[in-house]
Amino acid sequence: MFYRPEDGHGLPRNPFNALVSPRPIGWISSRAETGVDNLAPYSFFNAVAYTPPQVMFASTGTKDSLKNILETGVFCCNIVEYAMRDAMNQTSGSHDRSLSEFDIAGIEKEECETVPCARVAGAPAALECRLTEVVALRGADNHLVLGEVTGVHIREDCLVDGIFDVTRFGMLTRLGYQDYGVIRETFTLTRPK
Amino acid sequence: MFYRPEDGHGLPRNPFNALVSPRPIGWISSRAETGVDNLAPYSFFNAVAYTPPQVMFASTGTKDSLKNILETGVFCCNIVEYAMRDAMNQTSGSHDRSLSEFDIAGIEKEECETVPCARVAGAPAALECRLTEVVALRGADNHLVLGEVTGVHIREDCLVDGIFDVTRFGMLTRLGYQDYGVIRETFTLTRPK
Repeated sequence: MFYRPEDGHGLPRNPFNALVSPRPIGWISSRAETGVDNLAPYSFFNAVAYTPPQVMFASTGTKDSLKNILETGVFCCNIVEYAMRDAMNQTSGSHDRSLSEFDIAGIEKEECETVPCARVAGAPAALECRLTEVVALRGADNHLVLGEVTGVHIREDCLVDGIFDVTRFGMLTRLGYQDYGVIRETFTLTRPK
Repeated sequence: MFYRPEDGHGLPRNPFNALVSPRPIGWISSRAETGVDNLAPYSFFNAVAYTPPQVMFASTGTKDSLKNILETGVFCCNIVEYAMRDAMNQTSGSHDRSLSEFDIAGIEKEECETVPCARVAGAPAALECRLTEVVALRGADNHLVLGEVTGVHIREDCLVDGIFDVTRFGMLTRLGYQDYGVIRETFTLTRPK
């Protein structure tokens, strides 16, 4: 089938987030000027460069994460394992900005090393970031947040012979609709010369 | 463990692309002004907004895809299934710009509906795009390409009751190092109110 988005998809549900999948999940922690620590999952999230390491996430609407990042210029991308799925889902709800999702969902936090921000203490990995740019996307209130990674945490049990083994803990991933997946198996393709 | 990227990771291989995973694969087709059709996979690829639908991909170095897109202002993001993994991998090699990866890898193409560009005829889905912006990222020759989706193709057998079912064809995904995965199972989390 074919459709032009401006004409509508004609399907029971919008397939767009299923077409661009599976998406990595950035469980973004940020801190308001008032000191309240926010935590919310974003799957319009990815790496964008290696040198220096940079990431992006996109926000529809000026949510608390974006407000905080504009105030403080920093954030942290926490990586989510299968065992944390319910806690992560709890933090996707809409809460008053004076409340911390760390408290609401009972998530242990630690302070970042390179930026004034909290991180998820037990996460398989966490990327501490400094905001580099917010790009206004087309449409009403669509924002792309770009950051440079200034510090990297990796949980020791996720490293096998120095390799970050996503099958060891069950890397969580966002699919279409309200669906998720877990990475349990991998295979290798050797790049042609 | 913790490291600052500027000091090096100290591991046998750079873990960065494993930490931000699994990544969706945009198998990007583009056309040079000369008419040669290019095809190359990018996993620093994601959706970034719903209304209007927009996507991004990042390129390290000014590769042929980026050159073409700067010339023509359009591209297409083809979605990759497990059965296409070897053809996709073949198109990740470095080829002279006068050669088409469609020919090199023996991939059937069709013309897009809304943009002057080829697409992968048998792909589970394809997103026709108009370039909206190229953002210069930090570092040497790091580029972020943003596009608005102007046309969407979905292969009929990938729709089950109108839902794009990624388990039906085995959605391919890029993990860390030289690793890949396939989505075979999904589960649902209902968003809290």
